[in-house]
Amino acid sequence: MSIITEIETFDVRFPTSRDLDGSDAMNPDPDYSAAYLVIRTDAADGHEGHGFVFTIGRGNEVETAAINALRGHLLGAGVEALLEDMGATWKLLAHDSQLRWLGPEKGVMHMAIGAVVNALWDLKAKRAGLPLWELLAGMAPEEIVALVDFRYLTDALTPDEALAILRAAEPGREQRKAALRAEGYPAYTTTPGWLGYSDEKLSRLAKEAVADGFTQIKLKVGASLEDDIRRVRAARAAVGPDIKIAVDANQRWDVQEAIDWMAHLAPYDIAWIEEPTSPDDILGHAAIARAVAPIPVATGEHVQNRVVFKQMLQAGSLQVLQIDAARVAGVNENIAILLLAAKFGVRVCPHAGGVGLCEAVQHLSMFDYIAVSGTKENRTIEFVDHLHEHFVTPVDVHSGAYWPPSSPGAGNEMLRETLAAYSFPDGPVWKETH
Amino acid sequence: MSIITEIETFDVRFPTSRDLDGSDAMNPDPDYSAAYLVIRTDAADGHEGHGFVFTIGRGNEVETAAINALRGHLLGAGVEALLEDMGATWKLLAHDSQLRWLGPEKGVMHMAIGAVVNALWDLKAKRAGLPLWELLAGMAPEEIVALVDFRYLTDALTPDEALAILRAAEPGREQRKAALRAEGYPAYTTTPGWLGYSDEKLSRLAKEAVADGFTQIKLKVGASLEDDIRRVRAARAAVGPDIKIAVDANQRWDVQEAIDWMAHLAPYDIAWIEEPTSPDDILGHAAIARAVAPIPVATGEHVQNRVVFKQMLQAGSLQVLQIDAARVAGVNENIAILLLAAKFGVRVCPHAGGVGLCEAVQHLSMFDYIAVSGTKENRTIEFVDHLHEHFVTPVDVHSGAYWPPSSPGAGNEMLRETLAAYSFPDGPVWKETH
Repeated sequence: MSIITEIETFDVRFPTSRDLDGSDAMNPDPDYSAAYLVIRTDAADGHEGHGFVFTIGRGNEVETAAINALRGHLLGAGVEALLEDMGATWKLLAHDSQLRWLGPEKGVMHMAIGAVVNALWDLKAKRAGLPLWELLAGMAPEEIVALVDFRYLTDALTPDEALAILRAAEPGREQRKAALRAEGYPAYTTTPGWLGYSDEKLSRLAKEAVADGFTQIKLKVGASLEDDIRRVRAARAAVGPDIKIAVDANQRWDVQEAIDWMAHLAPYDIAWIEEPTSPDDILGHAAIARAVAPIPVATGEHVQNRVVFKQMLQAGSLQVLQIDAARVAGVNENIAILLLAAKFGVRVCPHAGGVGLCEAVQHLSMFDYIAVSGTKENRTIEFVDHLHEHFVTPVDVHSGAYWPPSSPGAGNEMLRETLAAYSFPDGPVWKETH
Repeated sequence: MSIITEIETFDVRFPTSRDLDGSDAMNPDPDYSAAYLVIRTDAADGHEGHGFVFTIGRGNEVETAAINALRGHLLGAGVEALLEDMGATWKLLAHDSQLRWLGPEKGVMHMAIGAVVNALWDLKAKRAGLPLWELLAGMAPEEIVALVDFRYLTDALTPDEALAILRAAEPGREQRKAALRAEGYPAYTTTPGWLGYSDEKLSRLAKEAVADGFTQIKLKVGASLEDDIRRVRAARAAVGPDIKIAVDANQRWDVQEAIDWMAHLAPYDIAWIEEPTSPDDILGHAAIARAVAPIPVATGEHVQNRVVFKQMLQAGSLQVLQIDAARVAGVNENIAILLLAAKFGVRVCPHAGGVGLCEAVQHLSMFDYIAVSGTKENRTIEFVDHLHEHFVTPVDVHSGAYWPPSSPGAGNEMLRETLAAYSFPDGPVWKETH
């Protein structure tokens, strides 16, 4: 029996805006950041749980405050009780009746709960000596169902339906685990397509992406139609007809504007249009999806919770569902979303990039392949080659695929030196610029 | 020309959980709280702008941190430029590209923007020497349209349509202003119906409400069907057949559960069912509305922004739209929502109570009556008789109506003694309980 003895939080920021990495139509100058926590216990094993919320700079201190607001549920609590029933632990955090007012289940407070939940999963996986994907993929269907809060979901997915999905995938688990180790999980890259890059840089990076084995790239669009047509053409010329090109508007458009704009890009064989409008606009996405078909609509990195995903699936708002490791309330809620996607037969292609999102989200897609949807057909995880060097177990992406991590944990752990150097505003990286 | 010289923030909490005032099926022990700010300038007039986010206790410090995250847009900024183009000021705050990641436009960060926007309106109204409702109701239709951010709205409401709505209401403004002063604006009361109250207390308070001139009361429901039937019966027996009884489930149910539960309460002539399920569930509310008709569905106090309200109107999710002064991003966004409601012909009955919500939201309904919808038919503002004594200009509610305030400002200003006494955790009220 051990207890949680310490919650340490960090406001970590990387000055990415200096190079226009990560620039898009809505986010011209992001400083990729993490509101980060470490959970420590008095257990002899010395394991820590690490988790974070990804943000893009200002406000990271608000997110850190939100993580600290959850201390009362953690400090002094029994570690085994929390980790053995992660479904109950999720509810303990998400249903705090006073904190719930700040959402409910959305925005700053919900993401903070996600960071804590993910840190607990990191600790649980380390204690089990397994990478998170393998820990999850080894759980019985009944155990997985018990992780999910079905509140507000039962008109679309009941616990019994979820159980049936998981049981149907049970027979092939070992075979798919072997396939995952042999083949990896498909990746695509956004590295060529940031809006701040010149056409020359875009074309060069697009060719490099193909040479590196990627079969899909993604371009940011939405600031200027003329520029977008030119950039999509340049990308198509660079990669040839067999490489998929997705485009991403980062919420820039109104509904009709999205439909009109995409009519101009459609001739270039677009793999999907991502975030055409507000992530809250379920009906708007559905209208866009009907109008731009057969181009699929993709969204999810800013979709606040499972209730909105449920409706997007019910309404036909998306054909590509993009989970994010640090937007909703952590692993448990993402499992709910994976089950919803499986129920509706919609493919999941996670959002990643930022800082640590690749490291974290790969575990969920790998778990999904082995134990939920049972397929990686037409699925692909975003990859951006930024900031991986700051992680204890950086992703292994090569030959156009993510390769399954073998280290115990959830992939969230940053290097100690990074936490110190990039601490805001007092770390050396920031002190020298102030 | 003057500039903003100081932003002072306060974490103010009232120990309301001690008496079970404000208890409902999802919020068993709220401590009504405000993340509060004061904007000071170097102008000779000495006017201050006051604003707040209402919360129910834990996490109020996170909301206060979010308000502080907006300081950079305010300190040193020219007051006249900010106040003269409040549409541009709203966008400056809501579209901060880094802070936007924390929403976008929802939860902790969005409510903080609302508090700042409302504080600026408070300052603007004080400078104009007018109560906010009168300031707004005196603006030209073009000026009002310029306050609204139509991003993500144009598939339901264009600026031209908004202008037409406002112009159509222009001729009767003076007449309605006079009617407002003569008749007040209808109010209903939730005071009798908190879940923590005994049947005896409920019946006594319900009778008192009728004696005080209220024609509608509201009961909290959703914890126990048996209890709800007994309580609704008791309330109906207490008030007789001519008083409206609304019920409020505070998001307790799943979709089918709401439909089934309401079938049992329907025989008691229910004025509306409020918050039957998740405030994010646009399609779920629409399904409930179809099933429980002709009982209207009411929601809004937790509806995060204008984009969700837009869809609820498009989908027929609600028949009573409940704006809240401190949930969305302030006066500007609530004007967008009032215009949407007018476009769809849906009545607006604001959520209030908590602390300061009555003081603030009355201005919006009065403005709506004079300059937007042009009617108060079948409309009513919630009233709860809590904590008004802490405000510089407490509401004047009597004879079943809100009476229009005449003091300059937006109604948000708390007494200085209150800010000191209830400051958390160091104010004397909290020190003695720790």
